[in-house]
Amino acid sequence: MLLDSINQANDIKNIDPKDYDALAAEIREFLINKISVNGGHLGSNLGAVELTMALHLSLDFPKDKIVWDVGHQSYTHKLLTGRKDGFESLRKFGGMSGFPKRKESDCDCFDTGHSSTSISAGLGLVKARDIRGEDSTVVAVIGDGSLTGGMAYEALNNASRMDTNFIIILNDNNMSISENVGGVSKYLNNIRTRENYQNLKDSIYYPLLEKKYGQPIIDFVRKTKNSIKQLVVPGMFFEDMGIKYLGPVDGHDVKGLMTVIKEAKRCDTSVLVHVITEKGRGYEPAMRHPARFHGAEPFDIETGLPKRKKEKANYTDVFSTVMIKLGARNDKVVAITAAMPDGTGLKRFHNIYPDRFFDVGIAEQHAVTFAAGLAAGGLRPIVAIYSSFLQRAYDQIVHDVCIQNLPVVFAIDRAGLVGSDGETHQGIFDLSYLSSIPNMHIMAPKNKWELSDMMKFAVASGVPIAVRYPRGEAYDGLKDNRDEIVMGKSELIVKGDNAKVALFAIGSMVKIAVEVREILLEKGIDVTIVNARFAKPIDTDMIDELARDYDYIVSMEENVASGGLGEKVVTYVADQGLDVKVETVTVPDEYVEHGSVDQLRAEIGIDAESIAKRVSELYL
Amino acid sequence: MLLDSINQANDIKNIDPKDYDALAAEIREFLINKISVNGGHLGSNLGAVELTMALHLSLDFPKDKIVWDVGHQSYTHKLLTGRKDGFESLRKFGGMSGFPKRKESDCDCFDTGHSSTSISAGLGLVKARDIRGEDSTVVAVIGDGSLTGGMAYEALNNASRMDTNFIIILNDNNMSISENVGGVSKYLNNIRTRENYQNLKDSIYYPLLEKKYGQPIIDFVRKTKNSIKQLVVPGMFFEDMGIKYLGPVDGHDVKGLMTVIKEAKRCDTSVLVHVITEKGRGYEPAMRHPARFHGAEPFDIETGLPKRKKEKANYTDVFSTVMIKLGARNDKVVAITAAMPDGTGLKRFHNIYPDRFFDVGIAEQHAVTFAAGLAAGGLRPIVAIYSSFLQRAYDQIVHDVCIQNLPVVFAIDRAGLVGSDGETHQGIFDLSYLSSIPNMHIMAPKNKWELSDMMKFAVASGVPIAVRYPRGEAYDGLKDNRDEIVMGKSELIVKGDNAKVALFAIGSMVKIAVEVREILLEKGIDVTIVNARFAKPIDTDMIDELARDYDYIVSMEENVASGGLGEKVVTYVADQGLDVKVETVTVPDEYVEHGSVDQLRAEIGIDAESIAKRVSELYL
Repeated sequence: MLLDSINQANDIKNIDPKDYDALAAEIREFLINKISVNGGHLGSNLGAVELTMALHLSLDFPKDKIVWDVGHQSYTHKLLTGRKDGFESLRKFGGMSGFPKRKESDCDCFDTGHSSTSISAGLGLVKARDIRGEDSTVVAVIGDGSLTGGMAYEALNNASRMDTNFIIILNDNNMSISENVGGVSKYLNNIRTRENYQNLKDSIYYPLLEKKYGQPIIDFVRKTKNSIKQLVVPGMFFEDMGIKYLGPVDGHDVKGLMTVIKEAKRCDTSVLVHVITEKGRGYEPAMRHPARFHGAEPFDIETGLPKRKKEKANYTDVFSTVMIKLGARNDKVVAITAAMPDGTGLKRFHNIYPDRFFDVGIAEQHAVTFAAGLAAGGLRPIVAIYSSFLQRAYDQIVHDVCIQNLPVVFAIDRAGLVGSDGETHQGIFDLSYLSSIPNMHIMAPKNKWELSDMMKFAVASGVPIAVRYPRGEAYDGLKDNRDEIVMGKSELIVKGDNAKVALFAIGSMVKIAVEVREILLEKGIDVTIVNARFAKPIDTDMIDELARDYDYIVSMEENVASGGLGEKVVTYVADQGLDVKVETVTVPDEYVEHGSVDQLRAEIGIDAESIAKRVSELYL
Repeated sequence: MLLDSINQANDIKNIDPKDYDALAAEIREFLINKISVNGGHLGSNLGAVELTMALHLSLDFPKDKIVWDVGHQSYTHKLLTGRKDGFESLRKFGGMSGFPKRKESDCDCFDTGHSSTSISAGLGLVKARDIRGEDSTVVAVIGDGSLTGGMAYEALNNASRMDTNFIIILNDNNMSISENVGGVSKYLNNIRTRENYQNLKDSIYYPLLEKKYGQPIIDFVRKTKNSIKQLVVPGMFFEDMGIKYLGPVDGHDVKGLMTVIKEAKRCDTSVLVHVITEKGRGYEPAMRHPARFHGAEPFDIETGLPKRKKEKANYTDVFSTVMIKLGARNDKVVAITAAMPDGTGLKRFHNIYPDRFFDVGIAEQHAVTFAAGLAAGGLRPIVAIYSSFLQRAYDQIVHDVCIQNLPVVFAIDRAGLVGSDGETHQGIFDLSYLSSIPNMHIMAPKNKWELSDMMKFAVASGVPIAVRYPRGEAYDGLKDNRDEIVMGKSELIVKGDNAKVALFAIGSMVKIAVEVREILLEKGIDVTIVNARFAKPIDTDMIDELARDYDYIVSMEENVASGGLGEKVVTYVADQGLDVKVETVTVPDEYVEHGSVDQLRAEIGIDAESIAKRVSELYL
């Protein structure tokens, strides 16, 4: 095995060039094997094997630096920098992250996870290098999908016309997670699909023209200064912004890539290298089903099918279904996703109501203000964005939706702990950042039926309103607890016998509350459970009542403390001088790493066991 | 006066075309007169007079819709839609807003204030129009400065290749508030400075070419498909994105503008009309000093000088000065602004340390991640962004700075109430959105010396840390209270005699606390004052002590309640079961409109009188 000889950074340089293809094949096999067991990002990594090899053959680690946009394509980079063994524990609790992490290796220069940050971060590393008088090569590797995010463009605008080297690799596979959208994507596609794009690699434009059209043409184009480049050079879009453009080049030709990287290193400006890759390359199922193999569950290599059969609907499925109903019921309902038609479950809505569906690309800011415009125009937009990605649009919610009190519904999937994606993807801030915003309303369902009811309620409400729900299997307990949703009102789930503690839980924590009660019942302790339903406004009538009837209210949320449900309950109780003690169960004030959701909950003390223990201590 | 005949929307259509220039002159005189008295955005409005006239002559209000990016250039629009009298109370408490407001007129279709939102909102209105089967023209008017903001590009990417009309007017005056930056700005400048750009208006490219170069050239260019456009058509950058481009056209020629708007209305796609305007046009001082006349204080028309002489330094001046010192002391200190070198006071730093200064354009997201890159590269970046604009970068603070615990200092000017700019600009959320973020530290100075000390402390701290300070005159009281800054520690200002109330105030509220004490002393009540200094982490030792010695702690902050200082104090007291009652003084959960800061404080009950009244009631 060639891979056996690669145990740290720069070892790859000892590989015989004739073995590059064999090494690429070994890497692919390794990745498929490991990811089939542990799950992970397969397609993007299979697409970036040769590109990563070429970068490692051309650069010197850790002196040189690569910022991986999003970072899910960095597995080969990990493999080539001494982390082969890490793949045993990939994305597992305590194990290797699925994203670049500075604390994991000095070959990881910048942590990523969200989209479109790499050019900004890379530019910072470039300027720091120059100010400190250091000598290193800085490379930002960004996918074409990430180019739909506005901050990438902010960064390109700032990288323009520099007099120092900065290499931006555009890893163009013509895909985000799902299909790409928008003008720039089509522009790249035009370049990509030109015949013989490789011929352009040599940048010999004048001779070509002369041969074909003779001297008069040359005179003409010389007169119009740079226009000749516009005629035949792809990438004028980037050159117009002041970024030198090289390419397009074949992203699966290691030696060709090394040549162009060498050329890029020679530039004393920002240079964008346009690399054409194929997502999922080398594994048939991943090429056929790119969305499924973007972030894959463990799968059978032979068939490409998930190993674990899905038994229960997840919240995304429930959302998907209720959206169809809402679309049928009200022709003003429109749906917006930011590059996640599959992930959010909106694909079905798209299929049935194509004219009322908008995939805006990885562009959360635009998604929200666009929704505000739709609402101002008389429609009822539902914006489905994951909790951690909606952080990108905080200002747009404050400024474009809520000042005007526009009826925009936020469907916030992946709220709470998400598991194996770790720190960057945990949805543990939304209750906080949304609660700070005037006119905003926030709900979270306890189970699958309630998600459905809340979505209907939200659309009918006519105000800015958010429904946050977790990743994964939908809770199907408490089926009979289905009180009508009323703005700002909670729901009594069970009144405990002689209980002195009331659990006031929201969203995913209602299920945990049920488990807490079961544990406590075994110890002879009964507690009352209230489903808070609303994080804003909170049900103060219920709190008054609980304060009267119980010694303790235990608020429970899968969100950080600051600005969350617990602080609201505590503050209300203190303001009113109510005679009850409030305990708050929250995510602690720290980033939560990767692992299974159950492991993480236990780790941070918001699992049923930990909470039951805390509650039972109240009885001492 | 021609203006006398314009009392509602569409009245302008009765003006004789030969009088357009005279009307424009009257409008300019009106604006200069009103703004010289009340203050307001002068330069941008003087630049947009003819453009607004042409739009009103070409469109039908309120059926047709204009979204004004940022919105500070909408004064002529207000004037032409029956709000002439509103200018008496412009930006004053209870009076007319300086920005478009739906609640002010049915001719204002979308509220704005922050940059780069208009294309997104306009696109929403377009899609809503089409889905509802309505027939109206939607126009987004965006400045070239706003094009440096990424979300404008997200929107352009989505506006591409549509089969319905959407008019984007690029109001290009080659300026943000200060000078523009970046590749796109230079690109636009290339177009702008071509000689005879008007000649291109007619789009007669082929005949021109034929005349000059003969048939062979035509054959050549026909063969290369659209390349001819790339040769001579400006705006290929936008066409590459799939947006039809018209222009550039003279933005001060009403009839010419009407012609191109007519042409734009005929397009069945998105079309960008590139209009060249002159900021401050028609008023010499505004043309000479664009930054000063961006948002002007009342001024003398003759001289252009502010009416009110500045007597005391403001916080921005103090920041400006300490930055010079920090730059001299530590060559790793670098400074970043998002298009506000004047507003943030960083211009002086720029003059002295040009290589360590970065103006990134209106690009807060990039600014923050770029700073994270600089910090990861070993420097000590200070990012100076106004409180309400930093909302744009919430995710970047969470994701790029704080996960990696990078030493980025946030200098947050305009924190708290800002006054006449109103709802969109109040900096009343930063304590909340920053408090939710793990690893973040937050300070606010009580007076000018403390701002200086805090900046020095922040740079030395080596962690993500924010210093928030208000707009306007710096408090120069409490000069002798200058305890060393210690992480998470507050400062005792005065111990009241027999006091049973301790005021626990942060930032601007310390001055208010001093005034509260003065009022109460006259009533024979003394209180203790503590300067909280830190909103995160809060000084729990001090709270323990205050709980021991006082009946009441009154927390005071110029920030909304949710997630702010008060909730932290209340929650700590409740958690610890301390025997003290906490009252919280905060901005209420609502948007605060325009007016003087003193008026607004009184209106929302956070002025000294209101607080003194609340405190004195605690003694009843």
